[in-house]
Amino acid sequence: MEYNYISDKSSIGRNVAIGKFSVIEDGVKIGDNCIIGNCVVIHEDSVIEGNVRIDDNTVIGKLPMRSVNSIFKEIDKLNPCVISEGCLIGAGAVIYAGCIIGEKTLIADLATIRENVKIGEKTIIGRGAAVENFCRVGSFCKLETNVYLTAYSDIEDYVFIAPGVVTSNDNFAARSSERFKHFKGITVKKGGRIGAGATILPGRVINEDGFAAAGSVVTKDVEKGTIVKGNPASFLREVSEDQLLKNQFEK
Amino acid sequence: MEYNYISDKSSIGRNVAIGKFSVIEDGVKIGDNCIIGNCVVIHEDSVIEGNVRIDDNTVIGKLPMRSVNSIFKEIDKLNPCVISEGCLIGAGAVIYAGCIIGEKTLIADLATIRENVKIGEKTIIGRGAAVENFCRVGSFCKLETNVYLTAYSDIEDYVFIAPGVVTSNDNFAARSSERFKHFKGITVKKGGRIGAGATILPGRVINEDGFAAAGSVVTKDVEKGTIVKGNPASFLREVSEDQLLKNQFEK
Amino acid sequence: MEYNYISDKSSIGRNVAIGKFSVIEDGVKIGDNCIIGNCVVIHEDSVIEGNVRIDDNTVIGKLPMRSVNSIFKEIDKLNPCVISEGCLIGAGAVIYAGCIIGEKTLIADLATIRENVKIGEKTIIGRGAAVENFCRVGSFCKLETNVYLTAYSDIEDYVFIAPGVVTSNDNFAARSSERFKHFKGITVKKGGRIGAGATILPGRVINEDGFAAAGSVVTKDVEKGTIVKGNPASFLREVSEDQLLKNQFEK
Repeated sequence: MEYNYISDKSSIGRNVAIGKFSVIEDGVKIGDNCIIGNCVVIHEDSVIEGNVRIDDNTVIGKLPMRSVNSIFKEIDKLNPCVISEGCLIGAGAVIYAGCIIGEKTLIADLATIRENVKIGEKTIIGRGAAVENFCRVGSFCKLETNVYLTAYSDIEDYVFIAPGVVTSNDNFAARSSERFKHFKGITVKKGGRIGAGATILPGRVINEDGFAAAGSVVTKDVEKGTIVKGNPASFLREVSEDQLLKNQFEK
Repeated sequence: MEYNYISDKSSIGRNVAIGKFSVIEDGVKIGDNCIIGNCVVIHEDSVIEGNVRIDDNTVIGKLPMRSVNSIFKEIDKLNPCVISEGCLIGAGAVIYAGCIIGEKTLIADLATIRENVKIGEKTIIGRGAAVENFCRVGSFCKLETNVYLTAYSDIEDYVFIAPGVVTSNDNFAARSSERFKHFKGITVKKGGRIGAGATILPGRVINEDGFAAAGSVVTKDVEKGTIVKGNPASFLREVSEDQLLKNQFEK
Repeated sequence: MEYNYISDKSSIGRNVAIGKFSVIEDGVKIGDNCIIGNCVVIHEDSVIEGNVRIDDNTVIGKLPMRSVNSIFKEIDKLNPCVISEGCLIGAGAVIYAGCIIGEKTLIADLATIRENVKIGEKTIIGRGAAVENFCRVGSFCKLETNVYLTAYSDIEDYVFIAPGVVTSNDNFAARSSERFKHFKGITVKKGGRIGAGATILPGRVINEDGFAAAGSVVTKDVEKGTIVKGNPASFLREVSEDQLLKNQFEK
């Protein structure tokens, strides 16, 4: 008996293990040496490169929800989801069409990555984290458990965002037609860091090696190489030399 | 081969698409033009009206967990789950028996809606949000990503709750038998708003057009049309005229 | 037709109900009177004792993700996942290999329990909560919705952690090789409590009956029987006599 549904219009590489009750739709390409779990759904035209592991109950290539009537239009607009070589995708994750996930990046259990997101290489997106549409996340980043990254955010390389960090992109909190001109995600420049449970207001910039301490509420930009803390967050001190990004690499 | 389990005691409308490995139990009614994903489970007697989309791995009509022995009693007590006309339900969501979800409401990925909850029309329940049992949520509301709405809360129409807001209903923090007399969720009156990452204490009321700013810890009721901020939150200023609910509608 | 995949190298007790499209792998043992939902995946060698309920789309015995190449080594190292007598496991949960869950404990929907975790009896792990690897959680605890418990934490008996609490274990926020010597989760001693939305810094100890109020940012240890609040948290008052753990038991 056949325990999976694998479209005969899909293409499956060599040495691919697929669990049970998984669905591989038309046009999907899966590279060599992949391990696909049980009850995994890979939607139309998604591209899974080689040496990728995808765990149980995960959905790849989901189409955004507008309304029942508009869904077919979306199919034309979004590019296929691409999961690059060597990625690890956890259980119960949801990754939308129109995403590109770089090589050897890890997307943990129950994380969601919305459409039109690009994530670099060797980045970790933590368990339960949510990356909204139109975000860019660099390489060698860690977005930890339950981080919420609001739409239109820009996270450069080597950024660390600790568990439970919340961001927002609407200074008008859903009121006033003015707000449509001002939607703005957060920006974290290369080597910036955000501590556990911090809240970052719309449009704020954390500059290179800047650090918002745990529990801080960031209402103003964080200067390069400085630490802020508190509610509202204010200057605490400079980042110590041994914690600067440039001093993290093996000699 | 048949890839779904569809009870012959269920009733499926015209033009309904169902993915693979989905389960439709006895007594379920599905209206016309619905799109049901893969690995979706729709439990006994649930009602899905027309033009509803339900994405992969979602569970509808789950019975609460008490103990293995008591579960059969629950079946008698709860009404069926009703998902009204035109709703959109994301992937990996869990919606309990005894819920009524109003027309054209969107429940995003990985959200959970507990038993005995009523949600109005054209409301959005964000990705990963959790609405506990015995809550009421009005129409035209937005509860954004990862919002946690504690049991016995009352959210009126046109309420906005930003990402990562946490609420609680037990001032005694699980101690003292006194607490059983005082359990009380939060109340947000028409047009009230709560900013990202705010925490709202048990029983607190946010009055009409009141606004708790991002990161605030709300220990006292928020007066009508005022903004509070900080930890603990205190009066900041009045809501500006252009952000009042009455000024949001197209002329 | 057969709607599940049940390995003939597994062992299933009497009076066990299994839904549809579930996967029971080699070496799994399931005790008497269990109720297993739909699209449930129980990985190799997991042990489910009697009278356990496991809801739809849940994964038991997941192997950690390192890299595609290293996964087979993990199989040797971790003990099987053990779900003890009378446990209730929600929908969409993910419980790793190498966990031991004590009797009559409830793990709610969408919670994740990582490898090498031991949880006691009659504890509740809330909806969406995440317990990281190498944690110990005692008996009669409540970790509520979306609580994030960082790796290497130690939670004793009768502890209460309210919704949305965030913890961390790295004072160096992912920088400086010094940090590898200092990783330290949080400790909550018997009867300790943490209020909604609080953030607890690495290595902090909440002593017996200590209480960090809602929204507090805990940067220092909390003394026995005292309440702290604020950002940063400071002494507020002593816990009232009727809320001490010793006064909670029925006479």
